[in-house]
Amino acid sequence: MRTIVILGTGKSSSSLIQYLLNKSDEEKLHLIIGDISLESAQNKTNNHHNATPIAIDIFDKIQRSALIQKADIVISMLPAHLHIEIARDCIIYKKHLVTASYVSDAMKELDAEAKENNLIFMNEIGLDPGIDHMSAMKIINEIRKKGGKMILFESFCGGLVAPESDTNLWNYKFTWAPRNVVLAGQGGAAKFIQEGTYKYIPYWNLFRRTEFLEVEGYGKFEAYSNRDSLKYIDIYGLKDILTLYRGTIRRLGFSKAWNMFVQLGMTDDSYIIEDSENMSYRQFVNSFLPYHPTDSVEIKMRLILKMDQDDIMWDKLLELDFFNPNKKVGLKNATPAQILEKILTDTWTLQPKEKDMIVMYHKLGFELNGKKKQIDSKMVYIGEDQTYTAMAKTVGLPVAMATLLILNGKITTPGVQIPIREEVYLPILKELEEYGVVFNEHSVPYLGYNP
Amino acid sequence: MRTIVILGTGKSSSSLIQYLLNKSDEEKLHLIIGDISLESAQNKTNNHHNATPIAIDIFDKIQRSALIQKADIVISMLPAHLHIEIARDCIIYKKHLVTASYVSDAMKELDAEAKENNLIFMNEIGLDPGIDHMSAMKIINEIRKKGGKMILFESFCGGLVAPESDTNLWNYKFTWAPRNVVLAGQGGAAKFIQEGTYKYIPYWNLFRRTEFLEVEGYGKFEAYSNRDSLKYIDIYGLKDILTLYRGTIRRLGFSKAWNMFVQLGMTDDSYIIEDSENMSYRQFVNSFLPYHPTDSVEIKMRLILKMDQDDIMWDKLLELDFFNPNKKVGLKNATPAQILEKILTDTWTLQPKEKDMIVMYHKLGFELNGKKKQIDSKMVYIGEDQTYTAMAKTVGLPVAMATLLILNGKITTPGVQIPIREEVYLPILKELEEYGVVFNEHSVPYLGYNP
Repeated sequence: MRTIVILGTGKSSSSLIQYLLNKSDEEKLHLIIGDISLESAQNKTNNHHNATPIAIDIFDKIQRSALIQKADIVISMLPAHLHIEIARDCIIYKKHLVTASYVSDAMKELDAEAKENNLIFMNEIGLDPGIDHMSAMKIINEIRKKGGKMILFESFCGGLVAPESDTNLWNYKFTWAPRNVVLAGQGGAAKFIQEGTYKYIPYWNLFRRTEFLEVEGYGKFEAYSNRDSLKYIDIYGLKDILTLYRGTIRRLGFSKAWNMFVQLGMTDDSYIIEDSENMSYRQFVNSFLPYHPTDSVEIKMRLILKMDQDDIMWDKLLELDFFNPNKKVGLKNATPAQILEKILTDTWTLQPKEKDMIVMYHKLGFELNGKKKQIDSKMVYIGEDQTYTAMAKTVGLPVAMATLLILNGKITTPGVQIPIREEVYLPILKELEEYGVVFNEHSVPYLGYNP
Repeated sequence: MRTIVILGTGKSSSSLIQYLLNKSDEEKLHLIIGDISLESAQNKTNNHHNATPIAIDIFDKIQRSALIQKADIVISMLPAHLHIEIARDCIIYKKHLVTASYVSDAMKELDAEAKENNLIFMNEIGLDPGIDHMSAMKIINEIRKKGGKMILFESFCGGLVAPESDTNLWNYKFTWAPRNVVLAGQGGAAKFIQEGTYKYIPYWNLFRRTEFLEVEGYGKFEAYSNRDSLKYIDIYGLKDILTLYRGTIRRLGFSKAWNMFVQLGMTDDSYIIEDSENMSYRQFVNSFLPYHPTDSVEIKMRLILKMDQDDIMWDKLLELDFFNPNKKVGLKNATPAQILEKILTDTWTLQPKEKDMIVMYHKLGFELNGKKKQIDSKMVYIGEDQTYTAMAKTVGLPVAMATLLILNGKITTPGVQIPIREEVYLPILKELEEYGVVFNEHSVPYLGYNP
């Protein structure tokens, strides 16, 4: 038996554990599944004969290192900032490590030691980051092998609600950490390149500078810019590329409506609202509007947002019950962002039978034999239920597949890495297709940057 | 002779030094004037027989403590973050200290030690903070003595260009640190109270939520909210006040036009613009606009700012030469804010014979004998020339006056403090009137918060 230690049993670990348990007899796998909550770990193992749930405090060094010593490979599904201590233990006890998180600077520093010890520290192998790297690099490397030169790379991804469960005016429900949705885009200007020119968008314009996308069979979407497009120059080796843009996908109209919250200041997480606990939803709205002795919150809101009487954005606000004077926030010392998250969660929570959906879209422009060409690659994936969501599956399955490939000696290059090499992405993309994660690649006319 | 050590000979020290030198024979004062640049110190002493200019590196502990030991009182006009080391030396060598800066947490911590040693550490005794504290607290305390209860306090201040030197479309020139003007309002939402309701404005709405003010003989002004109004509840003892608002004064239309820079992201100081050195002004503008193969920077700018053909804001941009393809930024690794400051400085620099102007405006609402009343207090002050500017005089004179009052035993209460007690503000406000700094106080009908 080979022992896989899995740390963290949050939402994203369900499909990962299911995949490995399904293969555990055939592949001789024993899973030790650790979480701060024993109950959560037990729920995920479902009494499987090849799984041992345990309670673990990962801040307890003795307990943690004892556990890691038992492993042949470690998977950390903990919050990203907790990986580094586990990674250091993996160096000490010579264990491979897999995470779905961005490579931190501290993680990067372990590269030399990992290589010396012939250890594979695979990161960013979930959905985004993860499947995006793999599906894009597959095409980029194919283009390069033919002698082509990349001139445009645009990549979009979004976690949305499935069409059959899309029941509100926002065409959106929380399918992942609501807090991250509320804080999306904050912390600095978005940076990208369009036709050789560096472009910058401040947070307060981000949701008004969207681009449209179409996915056959699913209709139109929009995307707002991610903050970090420029770092992909180094990651994908795209020096001298003319257009480089990464964005987040939403249904049409979402961003323009979301911008109302941004404009009013409701997404701010940097200060505490006075007496937030006893405030009504209506009072929360009013704290971002000018004082007036008699004018209603509604008319002040319409004026400040310059909304006509027939603007559908108004109904989006009503749907969220924003003007209710009786609903209390009920959160002590809360920031505007925390209160907004609470209000949205009332309405945007997936109901038991509802499903989520992942949409990914790459545009790859290149020059080959003096001609400019383009390949578009699109993927849509719909979840099974509230446990095996599209998000949990697309994050967890590549993690699980990479783990098994490492255990079986199919991935061999040591070091701190992300899945941008063939030995990683070819087998995983192929196997993902068996699970329905299929990219449709099509040649399209090259138009250059063209929103 | 009494020795006054003055550290720092920037713009704000000219009137301060002039005042003390003018009184130096009569008051038996010897001024040691220290700066990192001996030349700057010499320029300010102007060969006066009671002044000794010296070069001083205030990071050199031995040199610094030797100098402070010579003093009877120390004035620090250095950048605010440099005061604390000097303050600690003042505790060791038992010297009084005067600064025009906000009391830092570190400074506050010295309060007990200052009191034990019977030392006066007077801070925030320039213009704003300084004259604002004194002129407001004088009225607030008069109201209280009569048994009145404060219900409204609005306070506005601005450093502007004098009417006779007001020659551009913005009705604005830099009369103080340009960098602070470019960064104004950043770092968190503005917070204040209007008629008992806490209100919050995010940075990107700050310059669109201005209020109008009128000063007889000088016409209309506007003001945008400062970030920190709520802290004046404690400072002035205004618990349970219904309206508390502090703002920055500009000429009409300034804020709406400034908002163009905010909206585009040009005031951001958190990242470096790619190849800023070789970029033209026009390219700088274009980096905040969407790419288009043929549309001009001008039309893209008009569209994103939704500007009609006859909008005067357009001419404000032209006046700044924003669309010039030949003018180079010429700053290496510059942030948007640094580049914007450079572009504005081309046009907004005071010319040799031009003058600046300070405007201050308080509204004080109160309840007395069951009736609601209001006093408005206004002050306008115009500079002499480029050395004895309104800013230098209104910052420097109160510092100098407080220094002499402390030396002469007229201010006696020890501790880390700001000028909110009678023994400080009564003599200083009186003496300031001799220098033309006069507040006109008028009773007006109480209207409550009423922009």
